[in-house]
Amino acid sequence: MSDAPLPVFFVSDHTGLTAEVLGHSLLARFESVAVSTTTRPFVDSLERADALASELAALERSPVIFSTITDPAVRAHLSAAPGLHIDLFAPFLPPLAEAFGHQPTTRVGAAHGIRDLARYQARIDAVEFSLATDDGSNVRRYGQAEVVMVGVSRVGKSPTCLYLAMQYGVRAANFPLADDDFGQDGLPGAIAEYRPKLFGLTIHPGRLRELRQRRRPGTTYASAERCEYEVSQSERLFRRHGVPFQDVTNVSVEEVAALVLQRAGLERHR
Amino acid sequence: MSDAPLPVFFVSDHTGLTAEVLGHSLLARFESVAVSTTTRPFVDSLERADALASELAALERSPVIFSTITDPAVRAHLSAAPGLHIDLFAPFLPPLAEAFGHQPTTRVGAAHGIRDLARYQARIDAVEFSLATDDGSNVRRYGQAEVVMVGVSRVGKSPTCLYLAMQYGVRAANFPLADDDFGQDGLPGAIAEYRPKLFGLTIHPGRLRELRQRRRPGTTYASAERCEYEVSQSERLFRRHGVPFQDVTNVSVEEVAALVLQRAGLERHR
Repeated sequence: MSDAPLPVFFVSDHTGLTAEVLGHSLLARFESVAVSTTTRPFVDSLERADALASELAALERSPVIFSTITDPAVRAHLSAAPGLHIDLFAPFLPPLAEAFGHQPTTRVGAAHGIRDLARYQARIDAVEFSLATDDGSNVRRYGQAEVVMVGVSRVGKSPTCLYLAMQYGVRAANFPLADDDFGQDGLPGAIAEYRPKLFGLTIHPGRLRELRQRRRPGTTYASAERCEYEVSQSERLFRRHGVPFQDVTNVSVEEVAALVLQRAGLERHR
Repeated sequence: MSDAPLPVFFVSDHTGLTAEVLGHSLLARFESVAVSTTTRPFVDSLERADALASELAALERSPVIFSTITDPAVRAHLSAAPGLHIDLFAPFLPPLAEAFGHQPTTRVGAAHGIRDLARYQARIDAVEFSLATDDGSNVRRYGQAEVVMVGVSRVGKSPTCLYLAMQYGVRAANFPLADDDFGQDGLPGAIAEYRPKLFGLTIHPGRLRELRQRRRPGTTYASAERCEYEVSQSERLFRRHGVPFQDVTNVSVEEVAALVLQRAGLERHR
């Protein structure tokens, strides 16, 4: 058996997103298997299916092919390629068709296109909102926020807010805690009136130090003492004011977003 | 039969992302069915499975339940609930186990956690890069960009760049085209040296007008004449300089991102 990683293909007649997400989830259940993944979106004609099938046939190792293709003829042409073909829709459509009393549509690209313009626009508006209110900007717009993330510099507020907006259409602002905010009894003036919307992020001081060293190596800002001080002060602030908070050390932005939604009781807008 | 929408649940022992993405993709194949969707993440104990099963049993209409749960005992407890249970992993694990010669791991949350810190960090760095280089900021950093999106105000450059960064770890900057850039022979000075990395976005002038009216109603900026002029000028610029470009009218950010990756030959970093 070859030592080369196993070739895995995510094939779709549209964006490839669904095949990628489910494919990666399935692969994650087989961590010890070395794979190299390739996405092939927009395989939406017999010609493209044939071209891909020829390419797959020429690989040194027989591939695994995760696919979401609507047109049966395109599917059939692709399946001429050698390899383990995993059609990610096939097992589920018959029971759903029976439950719904409808046959599935054969329109390509129904999943990741714009199906409901108002809803889609709200999601894009949420992204713009996150951008406009990033890092303590436009505090006067916090009234429109569904959640205001709070935490020290480099804890991961911006990616969390942008992910909440992009994936779930949630209007998330973020406000940085800095020196002036510590050693006081109250919440920072700019956010005090939004206490019910606040959600804190915290992190292990050692990890924070690594993140700050990447940005400004050798500075006081990135020192162990400074990181320990800011983390402990921010957690003290969260506890004192009953602000829920989440430790993000070793937690991905997808996980943080899901935890924030869950704990803050926020609705997914999509 | 009740007129209430059919209750659909996405249930997971972790973030719920995979169940949401595949579940929504399957539902999109049955567009005429009215559903109301709910995500229940972190159902990772028998107690939580039992609580959810009781809740499902109390619904007026029997639900459809899309689930990705690793622990067989938790799965069994959930399946006590009435409804159509669709286990999104079940059909695929046996053939993959056979192909890989391994049994799947039973570790929960393997898919959306941080599996490879360097790769995860590169993705977060790409998000920070998009933020730092948004809307023509920090042009001096364009040397580090993999793609520089170009287009008129409100065409959708920022969400596209952020999505490319968040989802695919691609370092995407964006530069706005404005009045000074039109009616000239050359590319704008700030981006001329990056021509091979440029990718244009365009849009139907009527749709652009709607988007601008939402932001600054009644202004010249949002007038039909202005929108037509800017769109035609930007497309002229793209054609003259061989900049590939994509029309984003009625195209979602997920679709634009997939098209840009495909047409610019960019690699997905995940």
